[in-house]
Amino acid sequence: MTVSDVVGATASKYDIGEQMCPHRLVLEHVTSRWGVLVLIELLDRPYRFSELRRAIGRVSEKMLTQTLQTLERDGLVHRDAKPVIPPRVDYSLTDLGREAAEQVRGLALWTEERMGEVQKAREVYDARKGGSDQG
Amino acid sequence: MTVSDVVGATASKYDIGEQMCPHRLVLEHVTSRWGVLVLIELLDRPYRFSELRRAIGRVSEKMLTQTLQTLERDGLVHRDAKPVIPPRVDYSLTDLGREAAEQVRGLALWTEERMGEVQKAREVYDARKGGSDQG
Repeated sequence: MTVSDVVGATASKYDIGEQMCPHRLVLEHVTSRWGVLVLIELLDRPYRFSELRRAIGRVSEKMLTQTLQTLERDGLVHRDAKPVIPPRVDYSLTDLGREAAEQVRGLALWTEERMGEVQKAREVYDARKGGSDQG
Repeated sequence: MTVSDVVGATASKYDIGEQMCPHRLVLEHVTSRWGVLVLIELLDRPYRFSELRRAIGRVSEKMLTQTLQTLERDGLVHRDAKPVIPPRVDYSLTDLGREAAEQVRGLALWTEERMGEVQKAREVYDARKGGSDQG
């Protein structure tokens, strides 16, 4: 399998710096700092905005709003504004969003499980580089 | 499952803007623009630097070097410098790197397969936003 098969890339048309590949943008949205956390959190259940903000931690209101809008526009998150007073807005995953969230959770879990091995590799790499600087 | 379970996040310690969570960094490396393409390409076979650069497309020598160094330091890519003249350097996936690459390829394939649905969702979203701006 080539990169072209997977992300529609060819050397001639795939200038990712100037003209973003559309798949690439979706990948960036779902693996963005807050995108990952929103998707994983919503795998459990729908959340209201303020609940979600508390669940995720120190995300600013502005960043969380932007992240949710991006994911809503991509069809991954459903925004349900209830016509009540005071206003109530619930966020949940669409079927498409659930698929994305499960993949992203898999990758996030993998990075957590393998973090020890990554750390060891870094120590070996840094020691070798340090050694070769001196030698 | 909470975000804390998955990425080691808690509201008190998880200030992703100021102090990056180590798992988060690995996730960023493997989902980075060039990281994704390098990992997917190396799933097929080992590559020499110049071959890899051609296979990926318009990546600069500097960016590809940085991407490979980052992945090597994380223990995902093995760099094999052969003591021959002219110098020959082969890059391949480690076992750990293969695991990461397979996950990343799954996610990249998903974004490609589902791109049509994402595009449709965007059109609906944009039409609705356009409509509500006018109404």
